[in-house]
Amino acid sequence: MTATNRQFRLIRRPQGAVQAADFDFATEALRDVQDGEVLVQVHYISLDPAMRGWMNESKESYMPPVALGDVMRAIAAGKVVASKHPNFAVGDHVTGLLGVQEYAYSNGQGLTKVDPSLAPLPLFLGALGMPGLTAYFGLLDVGQPKAGDTVVVSGAAGAVGALVGQIAKINGARVIGIAGGADKVRYLTEELGFDAAIDYKQGNVAEALKALAPNGVDVFFDNVGGAILDAVLMRLAHGARIVICGAISQYNNKEAMQGPANYLQLLVKRATMRGVMVADYYPRAMEAITAMGGWIAAGKLKTREHVVTGIETFPDTFNKLFSGDNNGKLVLKVA
Amino acid sequence: MTATNRQFRLIRRPQGAVQAADFDFATEALRDVQDGEVLVQVHYISLDPAMRGWMNESKESYMPPVALGDVMRAIAAGKVVASKHPNFAVGDHVTGLLGVQEYAYSNGQGLTKVDPSLAPLPLFLGALGMPGLTAYFGLLDVGQPKAGDTVVVSGAAGAVGALVGQIAKINGARVIGIAGGADKVRYLTEELGFDAAIDYKQGNVAEALKALAPNGVDVFFDNVGGAILDAVLMRLAHGARIVICGAISQYNNKEAMQGPANYLQLLVKRATMRGVMVADYYPRAMEAITAMGGWIAAGKLKTREHVVTGIETFPDTFNKLFSGDNNGKLVLKVA
Repeated sequence: MTATNRQFRLIRRPQGAVQAADFDFATEALRDVQDGEVLVQVHYISLDPAMRGWMNESKESYMPPVALGDVMRAIAAGKVVASKHPNFAVGDHVTGLLGVQEYAYSNGQGLTKVDPSLAPLPLFLGALGMPGLTAYFGLLDVGQPKAGDTVVVSGAAGAVGALVGQIAKINGARVIGIAGGADKVRYLTEELGFDAAIDYKQGNVAEALKALAPNGVDVFFDNVGGAILDAVLMRLAHGARIVICGAISQYNNKEAMQGPANYLQLLVKRATMRGVMVADYYPRAMEAITAMGGWIAAGKLKTREHVVTGIETFPDTFNKLFSGDNNGKLVLKVA
Repeated sequence: MTATNRQFRLIRRPQGAVQAADFDFATEALRDVQDGEVLVQVHYISLDPAMRGWMNESKESYMPPVALGDVMRAIAAGKVVASKHPNFAVGDHVTGLLGVQEYAYSNGQGLTKVDPSLAPLPLFLGALGMPGLTAYFGLLDVGQPKAGDTVVVSGAAGAVGALVGQIAKINGARVIGIAGGADKVRYLTEELGFDAAIDYKQGNVAEALKALAPNGVDVFFDNVGGAILDAVLMRLAHGARIVICGAISQYNNKEAMQGPANYLQLLVKRATMRGVMVADYYPRAMEAITAMGGWIAAGKLKTREHVVTGIETFPDTFNKLFSGDNNGKLVLKVA
């Protein structure tokens, strides 16, 4: 066991896309664990769009921002290598908010044991982790698709979006994905079984939706915001439900957020726009994990992890989320 | 009975605030009614913010735009002066989409008989008409305030807003109104019994809400949109409901609509934004009218009509809605 821990500390609030200079890639010495503490060796770090928000000095968010000087917050998976905590033993595999670092101390709060014999560790950061719960409960609990509904999902080739579309298909909906680039469109329709996919980089999303969803969109699961949200707002069906999950098109904005200019369509179409926050569903996590695990085992739900090796690549790798250069759930393998 | 009918015909799509030159103030000769038709002498014309939207060449609205050359659409109240319709007799008082004119022909569709011995005719254009139904069902059905909730309403001194606040009070909520000017603030708190009111022209709405609603806003009934919607979004309570009724701050825009930049607060606060469309509630109209009528009779609900005399003043009078120069439900008395 190495005696040091390399970690990314946030030292500057990023303006726009994150830069290497926003972080200090520091090395600290490891110490012995104290009573009630465990030390986790981090194997995989989940890179999620929400992390960009945690870097901002925002007052009204669901979590405080990462303080300057602190290790960058991230969900990660690893193995307990030292423990003075009654619930965790050396060799246990766990996930939790372990941060962008090689080793993490924890008092056990928010730490979840996972069984790597059931699924590869990165899957617990994707379909069987936070993105999976977000997709499952956001779609089914907030979006409430009925069989035959037309469900549209943006960021459809991303970690959450790809799951949302497949869960909607399993529930009998017609599914249209919105993604960037021909490869992603092909992935969605040919590999994941989406009924159709729109390449937002090619042509007009609203026009494409008019052709693909002539009766309107019953459920829109939005990961993207901005112009795509505005386009879908113009194609809602009567009584549509919009699930607000994120707004990745806006997170790197240097200016003000772009709000949905077409929001009065909520009135015209008697539609509902509601936010989903995955933390609300942690008490019901087993419900989702059981369902998702069953679908994966039955071959009904496909997952794809985009694993990049080397913790030192963190800032560059993180930016793939926003450039769209990731293919599937983006995970940083520590070593 | 005069043999002519003066009417405002839309001849140009307004840019920004309406101008007299957007209309032709024409005179046509009256003709005999045909079988199945009634002729209504219009006494009062309701001036409502939604009319501004009907003047635009919009594709995706709940009603087609007023065609160029057509009489400007408006709800109005009047008396049947000729009838070859089995359901309407000369002397009946009616309301309906009679238009901005002195006389209107109707086949009876959408025409509702009202009893002027129960309430003055303008009240059927206000608390006992479309604005009343909008307030009643928008607040109670969409907003669903619980006793003790903090309810905020924008455009609070307007036809709908003043009713929303009072209905919320009757239902046991704490009510904060947002309006423009010291007179309106005084009217809301001293005459209508609102718990507090914010003058949006004086200082920061978000800061004022922070002081007045320290536990956040449970229900926001929005008639205004723009900066006020964005301010309230920053002060939502967990699980808040936003009722989108209108966006009067945006209807005269020459550029694109301003969408709510802070809409991701729906996610942070697990909040819902939903539109209300009064037409959906016409089948339940009697429920609202009975309740509102009872409250008015009991002195629990106060109404105020701002009556301007002279159909020829239509464009100028209509603009009072947007300048905030109206005090109460704006009604045009024909003569």
